[in-house]
Amino acid sequence: MTKELNNLLEEYNEMKALGLSFNLSRGKPNKEQLDLSNGLLDIFDSGSDFIDEAGLDVRNYGEPTGIKEAKELFGAILDVPSENVILWGNSSLHGIFEFISRSYTHGVNGSTPWSKLDKVKWLCPVPGYDRHFKISEYFGMEMINIPMDEHGPDMYMIEQYVKDPSVKGIWCVPAYSNPTGITYSDEVVRRFARLKPAAKDFRIYWDCAYIVHHLYNGHNDKLLNLYKELEKNHNEDLVYIFASTSKITFAGSGIAAVAASPANIKHISLGLGMETICFDRLNQLRHVRFLKDLDNVNEHMKKHADIIRPKFETVLKWLDTVKDIAWFTKPNGGYFVSIFVKEGTASKVIARCKECGLTLTDAGCAYPYHKDPYDSHIRLAPTYLEANEIEPAMKILTLAIKIEYELSND
Amino acid sequence: MTKELNNLLEEYNEMKALGLSFNLSRGKPNKEQLDLSNGLLDIFDSGSDFIDEAGLDVRNYGEPTGIKEAKELFGAILDVPSENVILWGNSSLHGIFEFISRSYTHGVNGSTPWSKLDKVKWLCPVPGYDRHFKISEYFGMEMINIPMDEHGPDMYMIEQYVKDPSVKGIWCVPAYSNPTGITYSDEVVRRFARLKPAAKDFRIYWDCAYIVHHLYNGHNDKLLNLYKELEKNHNEDLVYIFASTSKITFAGSGIAAVAASPANIKHISLGLGMETICFDRLNQLRHVRFLKDLDNVNEHMKKHADIIRPKFETVLKWLDTVKDIAWFTKPNGGYFVSIFVKEGTASKVIARCKECGLTLTDAGCAYPYHKDPYDSHIRLAPTYLEANEIEPAMKILTLAIKIEYELSND
Repeated sequence: MTKELNNLLEEYNEMKALGLSFNLSRGKPNKEQLDLSNGLLDIFDSGSDFIDEAGLDVRNYGEPTGIKEAKELFGAILDVPSENVILWGNSSLHGIFEFISRSYTHGVNGSTPWSKLDKVKWLCPVPGYDRHFKISEYFGMEMINIPMDEHGPDMYMIEQYVKDPSVKGIWCVPAYSNPTGITYSDEVVRRFARLKPAAKDFRIYWDCAYIVHHLYNGHNDKLLNLYKELEKNHNEDLVYIFASTSKITFAGSGIAAVAASPANIKHISLGLGMETICFDRLNQLRHVRFLKDLDNVNEHMKKHADIIRPKFETVLKWLDTVKDIAWFTKPNGGYFVSIFVKEGTASKVIARCKECGLTLTDAGCAYPYHKDPYDSHIRLAPTYLEANEIEPAMKILTLAIKIEYELSND
Repeated sequence: MTKELNNLLEEYNEMKALGLSFNLSRGKPNKEQLDLSNGLLDIFDSGSDFIDEAGLDVRNYGEPTGIKEAKELFGAILDVPSENVILWGNSSLHGIFEFISRSYTHGVNGSTPWSKLDKVKWLCPVPGYDRHFKISEYFGMEMINIPMDEHGPDMYMIEQYVKDPSVKGIWCVPAYSNPTGITYSDEVVRRFARLKPAAKDFRIYWDCAYIVHHLYNGHNDKLLNLYKELEKNHNEDLVYIFASTSKITFAGSGIAAVAASPANIKHISLGLGMETICFDRLNQLRHVRFLKDLDNVNEHMKKHADIIRPKFETVLKWLDTVKDIAWFTKPNGGYFVSIFVKEGTASKVIARCKECGLTLTDAGCAYPYHKDPYDSHIRLAPTYLEANEIEPAMKILTLAIKIEYELSND
């Protein structure tokens, strides 16, 4: 055992003796962030006006696709015409699940229902969002890993795979991706827009969960507008775009939306009319009156950034101390940082952190079937911890990375 | 043409000349009813305490199955243990749709997914709820009409049909049924509890949309507790029970729930965890703090009854003038009155009303495939009209019934 390793283990054991307990696995806002939106709850009281722009009382049943002004707000956020927008409950993930489910029971815009097919294959940029992959797994899809780099997924692989008619879609978190925090480059978006999949029912699930979630004023990533690029190629049926206010206002008590082409919207609306009378239109109007417009949303997000940014900076400061033995992303927005430690050591690092009181997301969680082929990736979610908890948490993590690196060379 | 018919037509033309416009088709609360729940919006403001009984902040992500206190509220409303309750979004119809959809994609508690079956048959008590039938139609089920009388659906027919393993379920609105307003008798509920369907994945969809929606204090219908009856027969997996606050607080902005056996709940939760992170827990806690408990819900419902009852009484007063030529229900609760006019004349009555400015629900709407085999049934929904509009609306309707009766004898 080297002296270096000995010192590290000594330091690790000192930390362990402190009996600390931190959780860096939770991709959710902290209390201070939630408080930013408490004004939502002052929008309505018993004496309010409950009438939307269409002249309808939002306390009552109404338009299943949502109120016009909420469509306009999401149209502005996603930079698509508001008539291409449908509101969808409290969660974009729920919408995504239902779109997949509908594709299995009724097909896509009249295609054969996927439940009638022998096999459905799905492209999964990795590392990616665990809940996307879980949906694929739940429906029995065959998931295909597509490696990500700092520009986005490997487009050459995607262009080859979509020649297979059993490949029906792809998961994408194109802006401040979960979990790497990178934003797809313009060239990647343009290559998505030029895709000509063999399957007519192939869809890009473009999950814009972090589209306005910038961390650094003046250093924002700018995602090229896929919908407009697709329109140039008369290919706009290819995408479903999702967004929500989950990490803008209250997680779980917000509103969600999907944007799509007129033909897609027509088919989606048909099913939606069977499925519900309407979503929570009162909450839609509450959100519109609180968030107002895109400019105001951006101002609101700066307040989130001011809370989150120091946490990210602390994380990166500590990661800098392991930069010779690990590679990590430096996101300009979103909720996550990805670390790639030495092949074969990620699960050991995570276990060693756990032993010392630091909970991290399970090894492999960002990969289909929970299998990281290199056992290298670790996802960090710094938002939920208090700022003063990040320092000791990162000390534990970097110690564990160093120790496992040394041990692997032993 | 008889002198009687001549007089009726003269009176009808006088009404027509007034250019009136009423709508008796909308099963939704009116503004005065919605105002009863405005206090919901005073529950939370920016300075509130947002912590539920479990100690969690309801503004953040949390338990997908809902907060404990909301389970307790629905447990009390449905008289089932609260641990058998799961909250489900803003609409029980949405829950129902998803249960059917899930049965197609994943089967019922491990059974063969219905999408893999050649045929799924479904029992439809008629007249019934149009949106139930639309879901069956959307999924391509073969719907089988089961006649209703004042005690509920024809149990003998049901007992025979469930011997067919391709019969997978039945729609029921057992309390103040949509659209007849009747409540299933104890004997009917007991026979439901004794059903032994050939299909292990047969489920009773027990939609308790109007379970606390009494009209007459002291003349409430009392629905026997199906869940307890099933337990006596060790048959409790047979039912899914649905309820919501849609017609208790705000239609569309309320909360919904499903109650089921432990085995069913276990399987439902499994899928739910794939489908969403959580529903709107803030709205769950808002409802619990406003509605408090079952006693308070019942007090709240009396206020609804005071608004609705005079409208039902006016409807029944006018229907009494056609009692020799039409049969109609006299509900003790719920949202609807059913009229059965002379065979072959319902669609003509509805068209004649329309011509005179009175919109009624389409003929056949309460039957699978929109086909009333006798063209006899008309559904009235009196709640949404203002009280003073009911008189002229009912005058038009009863005139139309009389005229079409006379014409049919001509």
